[in-house]
Amino acid sequence: MQVSFSPADILAIVQPKATRGASTETIRGLAALADAGAGDLTFLGNPKYKSEVAATRASVVLLPIDFVGTPQAGQLFALVENPSAALAQVCARIEQALWPKPAPGVHPTAHVAAGARIAATATVGPLCVVEADAVVGERAHLQAQVFVGRAARIGDDGWLMPGVVLAAECVLGNRVRLQPGVVVGSDGFGYEFVAGRHEKVPQVGTVVIGDDVEIGANSTLDRARFSRTVVGAGTKIDNLVQVAHNVVIGRHCLLCSQVGISGSTTLGDYVVLGGQAGLGGHIAIGKGAKAGGQAGITADVPAGAFVNGTPAMPFQLERRIAVLQQRLPDLFRRVDALEAQLAATKKSSAP
Amino acid sequence: MQVSFSPADILAIVQPKATRGASTETIRGLAALADAGAGDLTFLGNPKYKSEVAATRASVVLLPIDFVGTPQAGQLFALVENPSAALAQVCARIEQALWPKPAPGVHPTAHVAAGARIAATATVGPLCVVEADAVVGERAHLQAQVFVGRAARIGDDGWLMPGVVLAAECVLGNRVRLQPGVVVGSDGFGYEFVAGRHEKVPQVGTVVIGDDVEIGANSTLDRARFSRTVVGAGTKIDNLVQVAHNVVIGRHCLLCSQVGISGSTTLGDYVVLGGQAGLGGHIAIGKGAKAGGQAGITADVPAGAFVNGTPAMPFQLERRIAVLQQRLPDLFRRVDALEAQLAATKKSSAP
Amino acid sequence: MQVSFSPADILAIVQPKATRGASTETIRGLAALADAGAGDLTFLGNPKYKSEVAATRASVVLLPIDFVGTPQAGQLFALVENPSAALAQVCARIEQALWPKPAPGVHPTAHVAAGARIAATATVGPLCVVEADAVVGERAHLQAQVFVGRAARIGDDGWLMPGVVLAAECVLGNRVRLQPGVVVGSDGFGYEFVAGRHEKVPQVGTVVIGDDVEIGANSTLDRARFSRTVVGAGTKIDNLVQVAHNVVIGRHCLLCSQVGISGSTTLGDYVVLGGQAGLGGHIAIGKGAKAGGQAGITADVPAGAFVNGTPAMPFQLERRIAVLQQRLPDLFRRVDALEAQLAATKKSSAP
Repeated sequence: MQVSFSPADILAIVQPKATRGASTETIRGLAALADAGAGDLTFLGNPKYKSEVAATRASVVLLPIDFVGTPQAGQLFALVENPSAALAQVCARIEQALWPKPAPGVHPTAHVAAGARIAATATVGPLCVVEADAVVGERAHLQAQVFVGRAARIGDDGWLMPGVVLAAECVLGNRVRLQPGVVVGSDGFGYEFVAGRHEKVPQVGTVVIGDDVEIGANSTLDRARFSRTVVGAGTKIDNLVQVAHNVVIGRHCLLCSQVGISGSTTLGDYVVLGGQAGLGGHIAIGKGAKAGGQAGITADVPAGAFVNGTPAMPFQLERRIAVLQQRLPDLFRRVDALEAQLAATKKSSAP
Repeated sequence: MQVSFSPADILAIVQPKATRGASTETIRGLAALADAGAGDLTFLGNPKYKSEVAATRASVVLLPIDFVGTPQAGQLFALVENPSAALAQVCARIEQALWPKPAPGVHPTAHVAAGARIAATATVGPLCVVEADAVVGERAHLQAQVFVGRAARIGDDGWLMPGVVLAAECVLGNRVRLQPGVVVGSDGFGYEFVAGRHEKVPQVGTVVIGDDVEIGANSTLDRARFSRTVVGAGTKIDNLVQVAHNVVIGRHCLLCSQVGISGSTTLGDYVVLGGQAGLGGHIAIGKGAKAGGQAGITADVPAGAFVNGTPAMPFQLERRIAVLQQRLPDLFRRVDALEAQLAATKKSSAP
Repeated sequence: MQVSFSPADILAIVQPKATRGASTETIRGLAALADAGAGDLTFLGNPKYKSEVAATRASVVLLPIDFVGTPQAGQLFALVENPSAALAQVCARIEQALWPKPAPGVHPTAHVAAGARIAATATVGPLCVVEADAVVGERAHLQAQVFVGRAARIGDDGWLMPGVVLAAECVLGNRVRLQPGVVVGSDGFGYEFVAGRHEKVPQVGTVVIGDDVEIGANSTLDRARFSRTVVGAGTKIDNLVQVAHNVVIGRHCLLCSQVGISGSTTLGDYVVLGGQAGLGGHIAIGKGAKAGGQAGITADVPAGAFVNGTPAMPFQLERRIAVLQQRLPDLFRRVDALEAQLAATKKSSAP
């Protein structure tokens, strides 16, 4: 992170209600209260860290308006409505520096086939390939070495990072962000077993991704057998996630890293899947349902349920069983003892 | 999916035994019975959906010869031997449109090193790299941005999708299809612990992949320490699968998404591994064995066995234990009760 | 593996203390004792395979100095201090042939932005992209189709294989090796839930990777929210591993394939994580701790501990519980029997 703000720059961004103290340090980094040093900006985002403010060595500290305390020498307190939101404003400014807005146009090293339609405001970076009949929307940014297949469509303000593959005929909504190495539109995994061999079932559908979706690095989304694999608007997918053919994901879901969803399974809106969770095929996950990390789900999950474990069960039950499992050695001993006692009882009560 | 068939086109493809009704709609999509609308083709692939035929809004319906029922107005029934097979014929036609046959030749933006041998009928697409002494077989297709390392070999009719990496000296049989982002020939994960550091063990073997193998997006196959990592003919591997160094996979296996196989493990022919299954190193999975999703396998599995769970055990046992685990809270209560009763019995029977 | 050594070449490499027999075969491969044939080099690395030496068909056999036995006709025994080390010397020589040292310079098809600083001894291969202000160290090798983002830095002797993405401002130490498809510096997975939508939290930190780190194919490492995601010197990461934002990994750790580490978790030095292990966020794994394959870790692990299972527990306990779980059907039967006996006892003792 390359940051260079004067304390005055910070105040101009966060527009504090009040300030205490002063600093002349150039702000070159952001850090947590305990980690920060001279030249760092920090913030009190959670009241439980209040006691750490007195000892922080940060040059500028974002604090809530009602914070009681005084800065050290050479330290600036900026009192704001919401320190987390204020930090986010600073981060947004840094983000602009991290990812400077690219100039529109097609890089001379890119290969754009005849018949592709690239918006005049879009950027096609170095060594990208855009095949025939593809459509690239306004202000869309193909960063570098991106592949856009025949007749694929990218909405406005899309951002495809290096190495992304968007295969033929697949469709992205507006403001879709694909992290490096994402593959959209690989073939579904479908075969028919004929005479001792797996014969490929043609996979001729597409993938359709809604507005405001973000997909993490090296995740893979397969095209439908026919019809469409769907990711609903606003859904966020982490790295290395697998979405199989004909899966339909609702809106505003969160899929954490390394989740795998088998073919034709559907997710309602606002579903949250923990890391490495695995879902079988042809099942339905209801609206707002949640699954813990590594959960193995092979049956429908009702709306709003929170499941965990393999096989997945209600979270509270799974937690309880996890505790009882650790007591299994003891339970076996107790049953041994009961059997011994009962045998002894019988013997002693025998005539 | 961009489809445009007249109903007559469909009949020409599926060659029905008989027809009922008629449609003038252009067929623009394929859909399941319940989802289809005007302009869609649908089919009755499974008798259990027979009752949905009467209500389908599809313009053309593929039905078994003995189907009893009449089409709605503007609807065409095509009666065929096998509706699923007929649909596959239509899909095969669509597939040709989805993936038009590329013209042979090397794209001017590709970099082909001196000494590489590219068959005259092969296609090397834009921005591919083919290093020295590599061999690309007849009609092979390197779609775009593919890397083929020094002395690697691609058989006839291979298809390497965008972003594939085939590293030096690795070998593909004929008709091998690698989905986008596949890596063949990364180094095996081998180190020796010397004086507090992990020293790299050179990984100088190769990967050899048989005929008719397909590998899913972003899967990784490591080269052997020495000798060869092997994937047998006809085996199909899904997305994000890891195959470690010196693994030997038999013929006609199915490896579902996110499976991981540790070093030197062997799989017989016709093995099927469910999604996210993990296999330890140096074990043998017998011919035709199956593992459920997320199974954790750390010991040999006999031919024909079906295992599940972590640690993996026979499927029926695992299913039974899974049920009993959910009854653990009850079991603990029952043992509590037994202990209490026995204590009471003793007290009451005490003299 | 393309190997071509005369037996004399092998002797020149391994410098044996003594030899027995002779071979005129050109050595074209390496193989285990039992698998080797004419033209192969083999070795006795583990005394337990001693009995296989007599039957091996290898042309040259590396053996310990005290080995008792005589070669077959046309077979050469080379007696060395440490056959495994001698084999490693041969492999190192093969490695040089497998990966010939590239000529320094920037390939004409690469795109290097103005302001990037490429060492004169570095190699930027075909179709690479190096953005402005990036730094590529001495003898570093960007093999092909690599992306190096704005102001990213690669130390001396780095090796980035085809398709690697090193995003803006991320930093690699010296001698870092990134296997094909690795992504360093994708955005962390961070959102705030506001008014029914997941609003992106800017991810403006970096990834900093220490000296002598190796990362496996298609693994992904996210940049920090702010500050840095860290991988300590000497750590080795296998394929398809996920390292989330703000994770801090110590030195000399081993992360096996498909491991996933959630945000802000820290690993001490010398931690070893088995394949597919999953770690929750904001936890601390102590120095030298180990986790078994598929372990699910959601709480701190003390230094030196060995944990297994989901939820993770001490290895010995997990092993014991795994055994007891398989006896659950029997335990339920035993409790059924106890209840029946006790009921019978009561009845019989009733007045």
